[in-house]
Amino acid sequence: MRRISFDKSACPIARSLDAVGDWWSLLIIRDAMAGVRRFGDFQKSLGLAKNILTQRLKRLVELGIMETAPASDGSAYREYALTSKGEGLLAVIVALRQWGEETCFARGESHKSLLEAKTGRPVARLQVSSQDGRPLRAADLLLGRLSCDKPSAEEAGDF
Amino acid sequence: MRRISFDKSACPIARSLDAVGDWWSLLIIRDAMAGVRRFGDFQKSLGLAKNILTQRLKRLVELGIMETAPASDGSAYREYALTSKGEGLLAVIVALRQWGEETCFARGESHKSLLEAKTGRPVARLQVSSQDGRPLRAADLLLGRLSCDKPSAEEAGDF
Repeated sequence: MRRISFDKSACPIARSLDAVGDWWSLLIIRDAMAGVRRFGDFQKSLGLAKNILTQRLKRLVELGIMETAPASDGSAYREYALTSKGEGLLAVIVALRQWGEETCFARGESHKSLLEAKTGRPVARLQVSSQDGRPLRAADLLLGRLSCDKPSAEEAGDF
Repeated sequence: MRRISFDKSACPIARSLDAVGDWWSLLIIRDAMAGVRRFGDFQKSLGLAKNILTQRLKRLVELGIMETAPASDGSAYREYALTSKGEGLLAVIVALRQWGEETCFARGESHKSLLEAKTGRPVARLQVSSQDGRPLRAADLLLGRLSCDKPSAEEAGDF
């Protein structure tokens, strides 16, 4: 069953989810960020049927999130790499990871942590904040038009 | 068809996606962050069949992401609100929104922006960074055990 498409929604969250809002796509992107580049390595990491993996990679390429390139070792394989559009999803992946670390593991249940390679220190907790660095909660936010956008009546609604 | 469950995966990203990795759940959470509290208002916002919305809200309550409460106006309705676990998804929602704003709209196609209510100024771009504030890219990161975790051989792998 094809789900409703949100690619014409006025909401940027809905459009993002239309592009990457399923488990497999985001887990493929996770693996690509961790350096996986070959079809067989994605398959091994994800335990995913070849036809489904093929479909998902094809769609990610069509959307400009991944691109194919000749194998870095000169072999006949094609490799998959994130484009800059795909790399722009790093904050989404890290936000999902940090929430999962905090809420989806039992006390004492171990997991690895995301570290800066150079220093071995954990990355900072992502924090939604104002331009001058004050932490913000959902209740502090509203959706509106910036003054540089074309003027419009303030609308209630989704964010 | 029930998809494979990732709720026992060692990866916090996979566990997060197991909890909230579908369009509807994340769009329900988006609406809740924007102040929607009633079943009928979620339904109107999402255009979602009652039985599907009922299932999704039930699962979000079971997972401790949302909770029900008596209606704030004293009427017989139950309302749905995010728990603190649910509010912890704000960075995920904002990261999806910012990526969508940057990559899923054509030049000149307008969308609303997420503003701080008090100042009317846009929220800061989420940036993955080190503890001392240096911006980091995926290539700067690795997965490992913190020194406070129980020691283990460094493993390659997902993040």
